[in-house]
Amino acid sequence: MAFSALFFSPKSSLPKMLPARPLTPKFRHFSLPLLRCSSTSPPAASFDLRGYWTSLIPQIESQLEAALPVRFPERIFEAMRYSVLAGGGKRAPPIMCIAACELVGGDRSAAFPTACALEMVHAASLVHDDLPCFDAAPLRRGRPSTHARFGVDMAVLAGDALFPLAYSHVVARTPQDLVPPATLLRALAEIARAVGSTGMAAGQFLDITGAAAAGEANVVAVLEKKFGEMAECSAACGGILGGAGEEETEGLRRYGRAVGVLYELVDDILMEEAGSNGKMRSNASVVVALGMDRAMEMLEELRAKAKRALQRFGDKYGDRVLPLYSFVDYAVERGFVVEAEGEGKAASAASATAAGAGDGNGDIGVDGNCGPSGE
Amino acid sequence: MAFSALFFSPKSSLPKMLPARPLTPKFRHFSLPLLRCSSTSPPAASFDLRGYWTSLIPQIESQLEAALPVRFPERIFEAMRYSVLAGGGKRAPPIMCIAACELVGGDRSAAFPTACALEMVHAASLVHDDLPCFDAAPLRRGRPSTHARFGVDMAVLAGDALFPLAYSHVVARTPQDLVPPATLLRALAEIARAVGSTGMAAGQFLDITGAAAAGEANVVAVLEKKFGEMAECSAACGGILGGAGEEETEGLRRYGRAVGVLYELVDDILMEEAGSNGKMRSNASVVVALGMDRAMEMLEELRAKAKRALQRFGDKYGDRVLPLYSFVDYAVERGFVVEAEGEGKAASAASATAAGAGDGNGDIGVDGNCGPSGE
Repeated sequence: MAFSALFFSPKSSLPKMLPARPLTPKFRHFSLPLLRCSSTSPPAASFDLRGYWTSLIPQIESQLEAALPVRFPERIFEAMRYSVLAGGGKRAPPIMCIAACELVGGDRSAAFPTACALEMVHAASLVHDDLPCFDAAPLRRGRPSTHARFGVDMAVLAGDALFPLAYSHVVARTPQDLVPPATLLRALAEIARAVGSTGMAAGQFLDITGAAAAGEANVVAVLEKKFGEMAECSAACGGILGGAGEEETEGLRRYGRAVGVLYELVDDILMEEAGSNGKMRSNASVVVALGMDRAMEMLEELRAKAKRALQRFGDKYGDRVLPLYSFVDYAVERGFVVEAEGEGKAASAASATAAGAGDGNGDIGVDGNCGPSGE
Repeated sequence: MAFSALFFSPKSSLPKMLPARPLTPKFRHFSLPLLRCSSTSPPAASFDLRGYWTSLIPQIESQLEAALPVRFPERIFEAMRYSVLAGGGKRAPPIMCIAACELVGGDRSAAFPTACALEMVHAASLVHDDLPCFDAAPLRRGRPSTHARFGVDMAVLAGDALFPLAYSHVVARTPQDLVPPATLLRALAEIARAVGSTGMAAGQFLDITGAAAAGEANVVAVLEKKFGEMAECSAACGGILGGAGEEETEGLRRYGRAVGVLYELVDDILMEEAGSNGKMRSNASVVVALGMDRAMEMLEELRAKAKRALQRFGDKYGDRVLPLYSFVDYAVERGFVVEAEGEGKAASAASATAAGAGDGNGDIGVDGNCGPSGE
């Protein structure tokens, strides 16, 4: 199986991240793996992640739009729609969910409603994270955050309403002929675990209480809870809905957790590189707490960890592992731009700017555009 | 079937509500139905609701306690435990859920995890309702509200974590041999609908935006959303888990909605009678918006509506309808005291006081003790 070679291939030596601006010496420590995520001239083991991703976005947007009609009481729905739809988003959780489902041989229709539900849950958690009592973020995706636009009360309500809407959506929309009820219950339990008191809520708590200041293990714990859980849940749900057993689901959990943390870590590094004053960063900044050198080491460790978690899938499923595999490198390289409006508008490369990094508060894949690297 | 007579029995003429303090002339408009909820010398059609209720409480407390262990991160769990366990509560939603399950012939074990989950959801909604951006309630159940005790951030987190815990609890604890997965999904969807953007979240929104000032239809709409949904969901979930079909479930929804609004309306009347300044009331006060006379009329309308919704169950299931039937009169009479600590400590009658009415903000059955009437 060619995938063993792929997983242990020697790294290429050229740093391709952030090519649109001068790389600092620190970034020159970077080295990329053999596999590249490009839609042009793909090498043998390459995969057009950009094409895969952008082809799914219109469907995701369309389902989210339909799930959030404006109806009475209008203002709640407006706040919910604003939180989920306005300004778009890369829809990374849904993409990961669908890719995991297809990896294990599932029909993407089985995962689609849960994929969209994950985006609702993701948006809800960001709306609450942005509240004045937590991150006090005035902006999200370059626009006023939900509480800044609609008021704190409406932001609390919008989040409170998006969580149950996600559950309703999964139950109402998942094709019964593709997903047995018992399987659907497992997926719902997975989402509940991820957002709950040992998951993202714990991450938010640890972040606001400054746990990240207490050494590497604590920084990692905060990152895993606050940022790893969503990706972990996305990959696990996709696997479950695609028919994965417990062991495979566990592998997908490890993969997702590593990628979620990796994505945030890269955002953190990019903000440091861009000279951010750290104002909008999570308290759990590896760069601030442990320094850039350790951050760069951790980046490579996480990238390797995520790929290791996929190895068994590569051996078993062959090419079907490529979407998730290439997602790992995308998390580091941000090699293309994804636009939420879909309909083929994606993939216009943009120069890296300070604003090009994520908001530094957990919005995986949004505005995290680091310039072209698919060349 | 004797129940037809029971549903259309002439009312007795003595007002028994609030006997421990002088009744105002307005309260003398009251008349009670034939059926009384007493544990002493029960007449033919009476039912020992107090005994039924208090016998269930220790099990409910025990399951809630077990579902909320103190573990890392401790402060979240402390806030969650405080919200659900401290100061007790009458556990009216769980009792209604279990009674509805048993009504349609279900084993109470089938409903127990969902019953406890409803209490978690109920507590979570109260914690968020109490936040400074909504009701700004410093007290709940006679103690500092969760945000007053733990801070706004922890209150938001505790609520955010209790909702998913409820879902996890239902999935993990419901006996698989009693409840098919598809049935459990229906119950979960019911909970999601109740707390969501067309349910309790809508009620909170309508309340804070003062919709109740715009006439009776709007007052009722707010009350149904904010207070009726929880009881509606409790009765419907119990029915679903007990094996009710769609038509029976719909009947239970109507019943629950009427009882939930009735309970709040009686709290409102009691506060007015006690000379409350209305400070802690919901904006959607029927007494304030429409006057005491209309409030008293609505009370009787709701009582009749709730009992009408039960009529078909009485005809079909006989005595098994009595717990839910007597609950209607309890909502009006508050004929006994339920203590959350359980273990047979319940049923000590207390004099009615202003504090004896509910907090006026949706905590059905808590502190709503209006003196003895089981005599």
